[in-house]
Amino acid sequence: MGSTRARIAIDAMGGDNAPAEIVAGALRAQEELGVEVLLVGDPDQIKASIKSSVNLSSLRIVPSEGTIEMHEEPLSALRRKPKASINVAMDLVKKKEADAVVSAGHSGAAMAAALLRLGRLPGIDRPAIGAVLPTLIAGKPVIILDVGANVDCRPKFLEQFAFLGTMYSQYVLGVPDPKVGLLNIGEEDCKGNELALRTHQLLQKNSRIPFIGNAEGRDVLSGNFDVIVCDGFVGNVLLKFAEAVGEVALQILREELPQGLHGKVGVSLLKPNLRRIKQRMDHAEHGGGLLLGVAGVCIISHGSSQAPSIFNAARLAREAFDNKVLERIQSRYREDGQQSVVSSHPIDG
Amino acid sequence: MGSTRARIAIDAMGGDNAPAEIVAGALRAQEELGVEVLLVGDPDQIKASIKSSVNLSSLRIVPSEGTIEMHEEPLSALRRKPKASINVAMDLVKKKEADAVVSAGHSGAAMAAALLRLGRLPGIDRPAIGAVLPTLIAGKPVIILDVGANVDCRPKFLEQFAFLGTMYSQYVLGVPDPKVGLLNIGEEDCKGNELALRTHQLLQKNSRIPFIGNAEGRDVLSGNFDVIVCDGFVGNVLLKFAEAVGEVALQILREELPQGLHGKVGVSLLKPNLRRIKQRMDHAEHGGGLLLGVAGVCIISHGSSQAPSIFNAARLAREAFDNKVLERIQSRYREDGQQSVVSSHPIDG
Repeated sequence: MGSTRARIAIDAMGGDNAPAEIVAGALRAQEELGVEVLLVGDPDQIKASIKSSVNLSSLRIVPSEGTIEMHEEPLSALRRKPKASINVAMDLVKKKEADAVVSAGHSGAAMAAALLRLGRLPGIDRPAIGAVLPTLIAGKPVIILDVGANVDCRPKFLEQFAFLGTMYSQYVLGVPDPKVGLLNIGEEDCKGNELALRTHQLLQKNSRIPFIGNAEGRDVLSGNFDVIVCDGFVGNVLLKFAEAVGEVALQILREELPQGLHGKVGVSLLKPNLRRIKQRMDHAEHGGGLLLGVAGVCIISHGSSQAPSIFNAARLAREAFDNKVLERIQSRYREDGQQSVVSSHPIDG
Repeated sequence: MGSTRARIAIDAMGGDNAPAEIVAGALRAQEELGVEVLLVGDPDQIKASIKSSVNLSSLRIVPSEGTIEMHEEPLSALRRKPKASINVAMDLVKKKEADAVVSAGHSGAAMAAALLRLGRLPGIDRPAIGAVLPTLIAGKPVIILDVGANVDCRPKFLEQFAFLGTMYSQYVLGVPDPKVGLLNIGEEDCKGNELALRTHQLLQKNSRIPFIGNAEGRDVLSGNFDVIVCDGFVGNVLLKFAEAVGEVALQILREELPQGLHGKVGVSLLKPNLRRIKQRMDHAEHGGGLLLGVAGVCIISHGSSQAPSIFNAARLAREAFDNKVLERIQSRYREDGQQSVVSSHPIDG
């Protein structure tokens, strides 16, 4: 089980703003979250990116060589670069020297490295990336999965995502009775493309999944669902759209609120409220996605992550570790008598 | 060609708020848009929904019997009810007694009725529903298609959507050099699901389509693209999400702004600014989608449409008619020497 204080391996070399922003976020996480950070990367570059005022003695750097670039094909690149930062970070978890990985690098490479080095959870064919988004109901987020790991899915993959999402909702987000929806183009059972129609049947039959029906695009942020499943293509498009729209809304606020005679006074009176609004709308506050279905806690952050996102990703990692998500999924699997957590079904070969 | 004043057949019986809201929007369109409205529906119900102050003599009602319900399977229902309002409306266009159809009823039925009664444009396998959304750049909307007509697509369908979208952007929205993007999960050519990868190849090879590359979710509202193509499943989810998200942002403002000691004072100082913010975020009412690829101008409005949406839909119909979109697509087809407007390609059967 490792120590009770989460040890988080952070890929210092991954992402558009690596290493400076990654390191800054990691240092803040170590200071404020009570976690132990292992910075994986080039020691010289990491040290050069740290302000001289920071006490380096509390910092653990794990050396790596190179990184997987965005244009590289993950599998071959991971093999060609065994000491790449993401490989080294995953190995730390494998060797039980760390409890979780955070990376803002190539997300396909992070997933492949997790699969190769940590393996899948029993009963899971494909891991998924889950994103937690705020909803209309304050304090009631929704987890959407998959948001990019699997662009072409079979119905049983979505069924497994539904199971993983349910576990995450229960044990990390603390929802006692999560409501699961299938992203679709209509509420009616007969609506959907081939994947959605066949997945609907599986979810309806599966007594382990608290499926309540189809969720349309307009329902995603309604707060009526705790878990929404979709293939990684639709999920990725939706997530990136949602993030951009939050930014658009914040920009409109920034442009319009301070206008006119009373604008500046009004804004200054509302400062704390505006900070809360920013927190509820801003994707940087949400840190990243959890890679669900692999035998380790892995947070996949945006390529564009800056320090606050990395800090929040580390917090997500700590929550997943503290709440023993992996252990709970595995024990649920054992309760089911080594049966697959999803149904076996001839229609899905 | 018919008269130069657009004659618009409006399905008075279709939609959640039929006939009252449909009729109200239609009457306003006739008054303000200089179009001639033909209200298709049950004469008694239509008349009962009109305020007594309205002069009925200027109103043309075309009687129909029954309507296609949301739960009905379109093709069989259309055959069973030949005098249903959507069938009668399409027949008016077929007989050249109307120039366009507007319906907020069953969208699958509207598409099927258009296909059966008006037929497809040459070179087009499947019609698509195009939705026009505002972008970050004022006055530079983007057309997204398909947003719901075809949930399972082949690459050549998306190629045809790209052609139709380009025509619409040029001739209705007045964009001299439209930029076409393929909705995808990354900018790189190698990203995507099977459909996106194969469509990318077709679009790149097709000299008739001004394709500039992949558009991610975050690019949809950026204003960098004039036309974005996707299958009808993704497009529908995205459109419904987009419509709901403005509402979510406004709700968060309503909840958070008045909180605390200074909240109410601050909000009262910012009243006019908040009104402008609401106007900019609340763009749910944009009339409807254009059914592109059929041999007639058809606007498909939301089932939840109220009078303003129907008014805007009638305006869309008028613009498509005035700008001779159909004639231009057909003449472009003839220029190409009766070749298909899209490439012929063995990879797509």
